[in-house]
Amino acid sequence: MKVGIIGATGYGGLELIRFLYTHKEVEKVELFTSSEEGALFSSKFPHLVDLYNQPLQKIDYDVLSQFDVVFASTPSGVSSNLFPPLLDRGPKLIDLSGDFRLKNLASYEKWYKKTPAPQEVVDASVYGLTEWNEKAIQEAKLIANPGCYPTAVLLSLLPLIKEKCIDPSFLVIDAKSGISGAGNKPSQTTHYSEANESFSIYKINEHQHIPEIEQAISMFAGVETNISFNTHLVPMTRGILATSYAKVQPGITQEHLTNCLKETYKNHPFVRVIENASSVGTNRVKGSNYCDVFAKLDERTGRVTVVGVIDNLVKGAAGQAIQNMNVQMNLPQTTGLQVVPLFM
Amino acid sequence: MKVGIIGATGYGGLELIRFLYTHKEVEKVELFTSSEEGALFSSKFPHLVDLYNQPLQKIDYDVLSQFDVVFASTPSGVSSNLFPPLLDRGPKLIDLSGDFRLKNLASYEKWYKKTPAPQEVVDASVYGLTEWNEKAIQEAKLIANPGCYPTAVLLSLLPLIKEKCIDPSFLVIDAKSGISGAGNKPSQTTHYSEANESFSIYKINEHQHIPEIEQAISMFAGVETNISFNTHLVPMTRGILATSYAKVQPGITQEHLTNCLKETYKNHPFVRVIENASSVGTNRVKGSNYCDVFAKLDERTGRVTVVGVIDNLVKGAAGQAIQNMNVQMNLPQTTGLQVVPLFM
Amino acid sequence: MKVGIIGATGYGGLELIRFLYTHKEVEKVELFTSSEEGALFSSKFPHLVDLYNQPLQKIDYDVLSQFDVVFASTPSGVSSNLFPPLLDRGPKLIDLSGDFRLKNLASYEKWYKKTPAPQEVVDASVYGLTEWNEKAIQEAKLIANPGCYPTAVLLSLLPLIKEKCIDPSFLVIDAKSGISGAGNKPSQTTHYSEANESFSIYKINEHQHIPEIEQAISMFAGVETNISFNTHLVPMTRGILATSYAKVQPGITQEHLTNCLKETYKNHPFVRVIENASSVGTNRVKGSNYCDVFAKLDERTGRVTVVGVIDNLVKGAAGQAIQNMNVQMNLPQTTGLQVVPLFM
Amino acid sequence: MKVGIIGATGYGGLELIRFLYTHKEVEKVELFTSSEEGALFSSKFPHLVDLYNQPLQKIDYDVLSQFDVVFASTPSGVSSNLFPPLLDRGPKLIDLSGDFRLKNLASYEKWYKKTPAPQEVVDASVYGLTEWNEKAIQEAKLIANPGCYPTAVLLSLLPLIKEKCIDPSFLVIDAKSGISGAGNKPSQTTHYSEANESFSIYKINEHQHIPEIEQAISMFAGVETNISFNTHLVPMTRGILATSYAKVQPGITQEHLTNCLKETYKNHPFVRVIENASSVGTNRVKGSNYCDVFAKLDERTGRVTVVGVIDNLVKGAAGQAIQNMNVQMNLPQTTGLQVVPLFM
Repeated sequence: MKVGIIGATGYGGLELIRFLYTHKEVEKVELFTSSEEGALFSSKFPHLVDLYNQPLQKIDYDVLSQFDVVFASTPSGVSSNLFPPLLDRGPKLIDLSGDFRLKNLASYEKWYKKTPAPQEVVDASVYGLTEWNEKAIQEAKLIANPGCYPTAVLLSLLPLIKEKCIDPSFLVIDAKSGISGAGNKPSQTTHYSEANESFSIYKINEHQHIPEIEQAISMFAGVETNISFNTHLVPMTRGILATSYAKVQPGITQEHLTNCLKETYKNHPFVRVIENASSVGTNRVKGSNYCDVFAKLDERTGRVTVVGVIDNLVKGAAGQAIQNMNVQMNLPQTTGLQVVPLFM
Repeated sequence: MKVGIIGATGYGGLELIRFLYTHKEVEKVELFTSSEEGALFSSKFPHLVDLYNQPLQKIDYDVLSQFDVVFASTPSGVSSNLFPPLLDRGPKLIDLSGDFRLKNLASYEKWYKKTPAPQEVVDASVYGLTEWNEKAIQEAKLIANPGCYPTAVLLSLLPLIKEKCIDPSFLVIDAKSGISGAGNKPSQTTHYSEANESFSIYKINEHQHIPEIEQAISMFAGVETNISFNTHLVPMTRGILATSYAKVQPGITQEHLTNCLKETYKNHPFVRVIENASSVGTNRVKGSNYCDVFAKLDERTGRVTVVGVIDNLVKGAAGQAIQNMNVQMNLPQTTGLQVVPLFM
Repeated sequence: MKVGIIGATGYGGLELIRFLYTHKEVEKVELFTSSEEGALFSSKFPHLVDLYNQPLQKIDYDVLSQFDVVFASTPSGVSSNLFPPLLDRGPKLIDLSGDFRLKNLASYEKWYKKTPAPQEVVDASVYGLTEWNEKAIQEAKLIANPGCYPTAVLLSLLPLIKEKCIDPSFLVIDAKSGISGAGNKPSQTTHYSEANESFSIYKINEHQHIPEIEQAISMFAGVETNISFNTHLVPMTRGILATSYAKVQPGITQEHLTNCLKETYKNHPFVRVIENASSVGTNRVKGSNYCDVFAKLDERTGRVTVVGVIDNLVKGAAGQAIQNMNVQMNLPQTTGLQVVPLFM
Repeated sequence: MKVGIIGATGYGGLELIRFLYTHKEVEKVELFTSSEEGALFSSKFPHLVDLYNQPLQKIDYDVLSQFDVVFASTPSGVSSNLFPPLLDRGPKLIDLSGDFRLKNLASYEKWYKKTPAPQEVVDASVYGLTEWNEKAIQEAKLIANPGCYPTAVLLSLLPLIKEKCIDPSFLVIDAKSGISGAGNKPSQTTHYSEANESFSIYKINEHQHIPEIEQAISMFAGVETNISFNTHLVPMTRGILATSYAKVQPGITQEHLTNCLKETYKNHPFVRVIENASSVGTNRVKGSNYCDVFAKLDERTGRVTVVGVIDNLVKGAAGQAIQNMNVQMNLPQTTGLQVVPLFM
C-alpha cells in the first residue's frame, strides 16, 4: 500500500507517520502540504531526517490519485476544499479534521464558523467511530474520523444509552485533555510557563465537539438529547479522560452496567472494560490505540459515573484513522497498532 | 501572639509556617508532633534550618495552654483525641483535619472509618468557611477548618443555591486536584513516574468530602440534597478546580448569576468573581488565599457551569486557617495573607 | 516610595510587582511600557485586575523623573536607549536586562548583536551583584542587575576563586534553567507539548552570559579566565542550578571549601551555605530570594563540584533588583523579600 | 523464541515486555520473580491484564533452562546470586543490573556496597555496549547490559577518546536523568510533590556508574583516566542527557570531531550523529532505542562540548538488552526495536 498524508507536520500527522512506518502492509508514505510547499519535513523534525528527507510535496491530484489511501490531518476548513476533487479518483480518503463530521451544514457553520464542504460530499462521508460503524466504514470512500473528545465520550456512553441503562435527558460530560490537543502552533495558552502547573477550563459550553457527540448519540443510540459538555486543559502532553454523569433507569444495577459494556465490546480489541477503579487513568493507554471504559453506580444518588480514557493523539486521532484504514482495506483492525501502552 | 503547630512536617503545616513567619502579629511559632518526637524539623526540611533549628516538641498540655493559638495539621483520627483536653485551657484551636467537621458522628464513622471525637466537642466546634460563618468563627474556641474540595465547591455554589438561582436536586460536581492534596507520604499513586503525565479519577462516589459539602449546603443554604461528587488527580503540585453543573431555575439569566456571586462576595477580599472565562485556571490563584468563582449559563440546555478555583494548600488549608485565626483574634482577615499569586 | 516599572508584562516585571506590592516602604507602583501603549495590564493578567486596573502608561521622562526608583524589565536593546536620558533626572535606575552589564562595548555588540548604550552611561552603571558590590550599589544612580545564570554561578564560585581554593584555568560550568527564563513570548521551543518532558541543551558555547561571568570573575576575584559554559532547558517553570567543576589548589580540603563559603557569606542573609547534599535542589529556594551554594571535594580526582541554586525570577531577576533598591535606599536588604520558599 | 523475565514488575522489566510483545521472533514471554512469588502481574499493572494474566512464577532452574533467553531486571545484588547456576544450562542470559559489569570485584564492593558475583562468572560475562562489543556479544552466554548513564556517556565520548581528538586527562561529565531512573519504588525523593518542578543534584562524585565508565574507556579506547561525573534529577519521567567537557588535542577542528563520530557509527542504526544543535534533546529519542550524539568545538577555549542523549529505559536499559539479544541470536539488531520516537 502507498499512503499519502496531507498535513504531516501537525501532531496528528506525526502520529500517523509514527504508526505507518511500522505497519507491515504499508510500503511507502509520502508527505504533502497545503500551505508549506517546499519546506523540508526534517527542518521541523530534524530527528526524523532518516524517515523522510525530502521537501513536503505540493498537492497534485494526479499524483494523489495513485495512492491507496490519503489522510488529511489539517486544521478545520482545509479538507472541505481539498478532498472533494479526490472523491472518485481512486484513493480511500480519511479526514482527521471536523470538516465532514456534521451532516447538518448549518450546524457546521454555527460551531466551526467556517464554510462547510458540499452537502453531497458530506452525505457520502462515513463517521469513523470504528467500533460502532464498521460496516459502513468498509464501504466508505471518505471517512470523517471522529474528534478526540467524542471518541472517549461516545465509546463509554453509547452502550449505556442504547441499552437504556441510563436516562439521557440530563447528561453531564466533563472532559479533560492534555495540551497536545491544541496542536503544534505556539500561543499564550500553550506557552510552557503559563500552561505548566495549571489546570483550566476552556470553551465553556462552546466546544465544536458538542454537536458531533449529540449527532452520534442520535445516529447510534437513536436518542435526541442536549448534553452539557465542558473541556479542561491538563498540564500534561497526551491523554483524554471524560467523566460523565447521568441517572440510571429504574432497576439498573452495577452488574447491568458492567455487562452492558462488556457485551458491547466483547469482540473489539481496542476497547477495554475496566473493573479495577485504580486503573482508570490516562497513563494506562499512553501511546496506544486503547480506549478504556468504566461505569460505576452510585447507589446513594441513583446516578452513574461513566469514564472513557484515550490517548488523544492515537485512539483520538491517528490511531483510529489507521484502524479505519485497516477496516477499509480488509486488514485486521489491529495491524500496525498492536503496541503496549507506555504507562511511564 | 504565640502560635503552636501540631503536625508541622505535613504540607498543611509547612504552609502554616510559610505564612505565619511573615504574619506581623505573630511573634513566635513553635512546632509540636504527635508521632515524631525528637525528630529535627530541619532533618526533613534542611533548607528551613534557619527558621526552626530544634527538635519537634512533644505534646504537653501545660505548655500548649500558654499559646494563643494552636493549629493541628494532622491526619484524620489524630486531633479528635488531641484537641478535646485543650478545649478550655486557653488557646484558640484550629483543626485542619476532618475530625470536627461532621456534626453527625455516624456519618463521620461511615466516611472516615475512624472513631469520632466526642459529640459535645464536635457540637462546640465551628465550621470555618470564613466567608459564610464569620460571626460564629469570631466566638469559636475550636474551628473545624473546611476541606480543600468543599472550600472550592461551596464558595462557588452556595450563593446560587441560597438565592434559588439553580435547582439543587441534581447537582453534579466534578473536582480536580493537584497531587499535594495527597500529602507528603510516598505511595505508588504519588510516585513521580506513575503520577506524572497522567490524569486519573479516584474515590469514585466515595470521597469523605461528600457529607461535608452536603452538610454545609444544608447549614448555609437551607437545602437538603444528595450530590454527585467525583475527584480527579491532576499531574501538578498545587491547585483545585471544581466544575459544577445544575439546571437554572426558570427565568434566571447570566446577569442574575453573576450578580448573585458579586453581591455575595462584595465585602470579601479573598473571593474574586471572574467574568473573563480565559482567567479561570489554578495558576491564577497559585500560592495565594484567593478563591476565584465563575458561573456561565448555557442557554441551549438551560443549565449552568459553575467553577471554583483555589490553591488547595492555601485557601484549601493553611491560608483559610490563618484567615480564621485572624477573625478569632479580631485582626483584619487579610493580615499575613496579602500575597500576589505566583501565576508562573 | 514611588516606584515605576517599564516592561511590567514580562515575567521579570510581574515578579517585581509581586514583591513590591508587599514591600512596606513602597506606596505606589506605576506601570509603563515602551511598546504596548494603551494596553490594559489586566487584559494580559485578568487575575491581577485588582492590583492595577489601568492602561500601561507611555514613557514620559517628566513623569518618570518624579519617581524614587524606576526599574526596566525589557528585552535587551531597549533600556540602552530608554535609560540614558533619565540618568540625572532624579530616580534611581535599575535595569534587569543585559544592556549595561558589559563594560566593553565591543563585547556587548559581539554577544548581544545589538547597538550598545553610550560608553559613559555604561561606565557610570554599577554591577548589581549585591553580596559582592554593596558599597558601589549604595552610591549608584544606575544599576545593571546581574543575569540569572551569572548570579547562581558567581555567588557559588567567586569565594573559591578569590580565596585561591580552586584553579581557575580550566573552569567548566554546566547550567540548567527552568523555562520561565525564556520569557513570556510563545515560540516552538517553549510550546508546551515540545518543551514538556524533554531536557535539552541550547546556545552551546554561545550564551551572552559568558562575558558577564568572565568580567565579574576579573572584577571581584582579580582573575582572567575563559570559562566553558553551557545552558540547558529543564521542563519546569522556575529555578536555576549551575554545576561547576575545577581542580582544587594543592592542600585544599573539604573544610577549606566549606569555610571559605561560610566566611564569605556570614553576614549575607540571602546566601545559604548548604552542607546537606540532599538539600541541593531548586525547590528549596522556589519563590524566594535565596541563593544556595554548595561545594564538595572529590578526593579521588582532586577536583571540586560547586553548585549554585536560585529561583531565576527572584534572586536571578526581580528579587535581586529589589535587594539592590533596598541597598540604594538605605533599607535593610531583606525588606519586602522575607518569604519562605514554597518548596512544593 | 521463548523468553523469560526475572523482575518483570520493575520499569526495566515493563519495557522489556513492551518491546518483546511486538518482537516477531518471540513467541512466548514468561514472567518470574525473585521476591514476589504468587503476586499477580496484573494486580500491579491492571491495564496489562490481557498481556499476562497469571501469577509471577517462582524461579525454578529446570523451568528456566528451557528458555532461549532469560533477562534479569532486578536490583543490584540479586542476579549475582540468581544467574551463576544458570550459566551453562542453556539460555542466553542478559542482566540489566550492575552485578556483572565491573571486572574488578573490589571495585564492585566499594561502589555497590554488596557482595560481588563469583570472579569466574564476572570474567565470563561480556559488557553489552552493543556498538562497541558486537563480536564478543555474539558469543556471550552472559551479558552485562550497560548502565543508563554509561550508555549515553560512552557512545558520545568513546570515538573522540579512541581517535585522540580530545585530551582524556581532565574529563568532566555532567549527567541528567528523568526520574524513572530511580525505579518504581516510592520514596521521598521520588514523591511527586517534592520531585515535580525541582531540579537537583545527587550522588555527588559517588555514583556507581563512575567505575563502569572508566573501565569501558580503558577497555574500548585504551585510556586510563579518572573522570569527574555528577548526576542530576530532571522533573520528567524518561530521558538522559549527558554533557561532557574536555580539551581538544592540538589541531583538531569541528570537522574532525563530526567526522570521527560519523565514521564510527556509519553502520550502526541506533546511533545518530546530530549536526543541528536545536535537535539535541531527550524528546527526540523518547520511547525509542536511539542514542543521539553531538560534539561542538568551542574555538574560544579550545574545549569541546560532547552530548549523548537516550531514553534511559530503552537504549539505557530494555532496548539495548533486546538489541544484545538480537546480536546473540543472529537477528538483525533492529528486530522489534524499529519504532519512531514519540517526540511529544
